[in-house]
Amino acid sequence: MTLTRIYMEQKSKLKQIESRLESALKAPQPILNEASLDLLRAGGKRIRPLLTLLCAQYGDPSRETVMKSAVMLELIHMASLVHDDVVDDSNLRRGKPTVKAQWDNRVAMFTGDFIFARAIELISDFDNDEIHMSISRVIRDLSLGEIDQIKELYHWKQNMRVYLRRIKRKTALLMALSCQLGALASGCSSRVGLSLYYFGYYLGMSYQMTDDILDFVGTEKQLGKPAGGDLRNGNITLPTFFALHKYGMRNAILSVLEDKNPKQSDWDSIICAIRDCGAIQDSEQLSDAYLSKAKTILERLPQQRATRSLKEIADYIGTRND
Amino acid sequence: MTLTRIYMEQKSKLKQIESRLESALKAPQPILNEASLDLLRAGGKRIRPLLTLLCAQYGDPSRETVMKSAVMLELIHMASLVHDDVVDDSNLRRGKPTVKAQWDNRVAMFTGDFIFARAIELISDFDNDEIHMSISRVIRDLSLGEIDQIKELYHWKQNMRVYLRRIKRKTALLMALSCQLGALASGCSSRVGLSLYYFGYYLGMSYQMTDDILDFVGTEKQLGKPAGGDLRNGNITLPTFFALHKYGMRNAILSVLEDKNPKQSDWDSIICAIRDCGAIQDSEQLSDAYLSKAKTILERLPQQRATRSLKEIADYIGTRND
Repeated sequence: MTLTRIYMEQKSKLKQIESRLESALKAPQPILNEASLDLLRAGGKRIRPLLTLLCAQYGDPSRETVMKSAVMLELIHMASLVHDDVVDDSNLRRGKPTVKAQWDNRVAMFTGDFIFARAIELISDFDNDEIHMSISRVIRDLSLGEIDQIKELYHWKQNMRVYLRRIKRKTALLMALSCQLGALASGCSSRVGLSLYYFGYYLGMSYQMTDDILDFVGTEKQLGKPAGGDLRNGNITLPTFFALHKYGMRNAILSVLEDKNPKQSDWDSIICAIRDCGAIQDSEQLSDAYLSKAKTILERLPQQRATRSLKEIADYIGTRND
Repeated sequence: MTLTRIYMEQKSKLKQIESRLESALKAPQPILNEASLDLLRAGGKRIRPLLTLLCAQYGDPSRETVMKSAVMLELIHMASLVHDDVVDDSNLRRGKPTVKAQWDNRVAMFTGDFIFARAIELISDFDNDEIHMSISRVIRDLSLGEIDQIKELYHWKQNMRVYLRRIKRKTALLMALSCQLGALASGCSSRVGLSLYYFGYYLGMSYQMTDDILDFVGTEKQLGKPAGGDLRNGNITLPTFFALHKYGMRNAILSVLEDKNPKQSDWDSIICAIRDCGAIQDSEQLSDAYLSKAKTILERLPQQRATRSLKEIADYIGTRND
């Protein structure tokens, strides 16, 4: 399953988005300019703008506000990626050095602030209250998710609900917003906007779970970084939950997590054990359950070209390996 | 010169602002809650909300949007303070440990993000396009100013124009906005809004210059941190410019700035020398010139109670020592 057909269909609009992102990231300071443009060149799937474009097909997709929404959403996502890199102590993203690794934490922080500020500028052009409210709520929740992420590191006693809330805030709500804004900015009713919001939410939950699964099962080449990085950084994700609570691996995992100076080989063997115990299958099942919910919502929407494309995206997320 | 009369006059509104700030900073996570509330309890002059309240007297100061503007402006200011502390490597602000010193850089970064997100939520309630545009431009410039601040550290070759642009972005524009929003949110014309914007801009320039002067002449007790901190951190401010370019202290200053391991006594003596060479008087003169421009604008506004109060604020800034 690939998204080639959809990317081809949206090619000219995605190209426009790319060039608008480039303009938005142009800054008067070379240091900032370089950091932002590096991020742009590192690419990414642009899944959020794509969702916006597709959902806009339920209304009038040619509206200028659709394009603005798409660019703004990707800017918010990029800003949060840059701040995340400060947290993660990760030096690679998509196989390239992160802004933080190349510069330092402070430049990364302010680059994120700048990109976020550019997003805010775009928001100020909208004159729809519902859009403003939705965006600002998601931005707040995104910032709560950022805090969750560091607060909950190494807390192996957290329950699954805590994990679900964290990925909702960190990932799913922005995808939900990407879908909702596509609808609202193209002139759809609030009702259609809300349906697409929930579609994006369920899709986003599954998207993040898949990310978390890939972190265990992906090769270093696919991930652009070594496997098991989440756990190594103390980030307890879905497969680890199942391993901890369903497969009795509590002692084995804790002995590594609580070890002040664990050996590389200890990490490698615990990551292998989580991968092989059945936790991955359980995680995939939960992820698929969210995808089913997303698809159920599509059934209630008018059956048109966009609906087919959104279904393809859902199918892709269920099978993606990068 | 103190602002006692004005604070007394605005007491009940300032108290409301304080309690709204407290609600805005309440977060579901204890770590975040504590960091934000510590910041709130550390106090501050609330000069931005005060400017908003006073400028709103040119229109209808009882409007709800006036209060919202005031709270939002202080939140933006607080968010930028928290991110600044990450940059400054400063461990004290207003005599209390900074968020960063108590927790760490990452918590400080995300606390700033959260406070900023709360400000954005308030912005989404405004339905005036002019307000949205103004706010978003200032937010962008503020983020550019943050980058300026680190980019220009230790660059002793920068000219005065670079310094002026930096303090404009970092301080003056937010004060300009505080005044303009007071006018617009209370229903004044764009013209009055723009006059007050320029008043706030000139006032803000002088405010920051005074801050930079105080960093050299203040006592540790007044500053809440040791004197000369700006220069020690590589931040070249107004008095240092005069010392470098007018008082031939280039070699003396550079020998300390470029020394990889300068002694405490080297710092102390260069800070004394800058204080005593005449650079402080020159700085005060420039600061006063900006204040005069601010006051000239007041002369063109309707002469009413608010005009007198704003003049008092300008006079206070010219003489303040904390």
